[in-house]
Amino acid sequence: MRFIKILSCKMAMKLLSSVKCFGGEQRIYSHASEVLGCEMKFGVYMPPSAVEDHAECPVLYFLSGLTCTQDNFIQKSCFQQHAAKHGIVVVNPDTSPRGLNLPGEDDHWDFGSGAGFYVDATEAPWSKNYKMYSYVTQELPKLVNANLPVLPNKRGIFGHSMGGHGALICALKNPGVYQSVSAFAPISNPINCPWGKKAFNGYLGGNEETWKNWDATELATAYAGNPLEILVDQGSQDNFYKEKQLLPENLLNAAAENDHLQLIYKNREGYDHSYFFIATFLGEHFDHHAKFLKA
Amino acid sequence: MRFIKILSCKMAMKLLSSVKCFGGEQRIYSHASEVLGCEMKFGVYMPPSAVEDHAECPVLYFLSGLTCTQDNFIQKSCFQQHAAKHGIVVVNPDTSPRGLNLPGEDDHWDFGSGAGFYVDATEAPWSKNYKMYSYVTQELPKLVNANLPVLPNKRGIFGHSMGGHGALICALKNPGVYQSVSAFAPISNPINCPWGKKAFNGYLGGNEETWKNWDATELATAYAGNPLEILVDQGSQDNFYKEKQLLPENLLNAAAENDHLQLIYKNREGYDHSYFFIATFLGEHFDHHAKFLKA
Repeated sequence: MRFIKILSCKMAMKLLSSVKCFGGEQRIYSHASEVLGCEMKFGVYMPPSAVEDHAECPVLYFLSGLTCTQDNFIQKSCFQQHAAKHGIVVVNPDTSPRGLNLPGEDDHWDFGSGAGFYVDATEAPWSKNYKMYSYVTQELPKLVNANLPVLPNKRGIFGHSMGGHGALICALKNPGVYQSVSAFAPISNPINCPWGKKAFNGYLGGNEETWKNWDATELATAYAGNPLEILVDQGSQDNFYKEKQLLPENLLNAAAENDHLQLIYKNREGYDHSYFFIATFLGEHFDHHAKFLKA
Repeated sequence: MRFIKILSCKMAMKLLSSVKCFGGEQRIYSHASEVLGCEMKFGVYMPPSAVEDHAECPVLYFLSGLTCTQDNFIQKSCFQQHAAKHGIVVVNPDTSPRGLNLPGEDDHWDFGSGAGFYVDATEAPWSKNYKMYSYVTQELPKLVNANLPVLPNKRGIFGHSMGGHGALICALKNPGVYQSVSAFAPISNPINCPWGKKAFNGYLGGNEETWKNWDATELATAYAGNPLEILVDQGSQDNFYKEKQLLPENLLNAAAENDHLQLIYKNREGYDHSYFFIATFLGEHFDHHAKFLKA
């Protein structure tokens, strides 16, 4: 019911800034999130076709990694050049609720603020606000669809690291909702890596069986939806890959066993986990998304 | 004499980091600058041709604006994609000496640290260290030429804002040394704007006649060297342009009166002073430099 209220309110988002970039506009908006119970910021890039011709465009969501806000991707990737070329609106949210002052929220760089892990928490004190999955898959798209010139049925999602995990689970848990999906160095099997175990234990509690609902490798094994072609890039010199935080091979194996999934896995020799890696291969990711979103 | 010493010492620069990016390597080096009397960092992008084939490449220097270090351009512009495409080494220094603890050095964002203005100071206490002009035109190129696979006679320079001023005066004061030059939103006539007056008064003293040796518009009026084609980009919504800190029209008029100079001036409707503006038009600047450096 609360989403109907949002849909009916065109003033629900506030423009904080807008800068011309590659012929379009890089904007930052804020809004009062009912799902998260706090004020949230997010980026919107409007390509030239949306700004000049008021054309309705496909929309691509980007989810960032640990410690990021919406600003990192906006300022460090130059994604705008690719979005401008393809005529795609790009929306990128923050990585957690903000400013709640929950006990321990800011104690760890890999849990709490900046580390929402795109799940819906079930454990106190996180369960009231840390619902980034519902935020990213429901509240934010409804807000965007109601306020911006986007094609609601042409929606893609991608992300980096923790955000790669987020993009994968959003697509795998919602067959047909996302027409395209890709990831840079995703945390591919969080129930089996230190970052994921810490986060899921904190947000979801000690019953590891429930964790599987939020794990891309587990979801890829069980996936029975419409055919999905997933692009994953991984740098060979990524220290988090070497430390087995990312485990893309597990996802690769799960997808190989599932006829509903096709995983295009690119090992990028010599690349690390940084935005330099992302920037280098971002054009290929946009080509991948455009293939489905502009079809 | 001290430069001969640097030339003879291949260990004079220390590699702090190297990240693979667009097929090449984005590096940060440090070295003990004799001219500035302090440790300095600078960025070097090695294109794929330099890394893989050990090819000697043209070298392009980028000078940043007020408050920047070497990191801003490296992290926010995605220039590496263009340098990779053209096979050009890019070197970008810091914007002032660092860590000297001179009285007042850190009191102003537009003077002292982060604001060296690419002049050789003559006034105490700045005159001992604040010699960014000699650093950029002499010490740094000698270090680069001695340690990296660059073609010493294929050298270009460009910059942004204060760094645009720096690039213009370096080229105009050294006919034949820089084969190409361009600028984004340069401080084009510093002796007639608040930023320039404050900086030149502090670094050069109260005799305004001496300031003209460091002013792009004055130097463009007097220029009698080999023909030089200068590309300048200016955003129409740049607040510093509106506040008359940049005054590109004065440079345009001076160049129009001088047969040795051709100024290609681009008014970019709706763009501001940010790295989004730089990123948008960076490809055209690399095309401009490549025309001369790859000739």
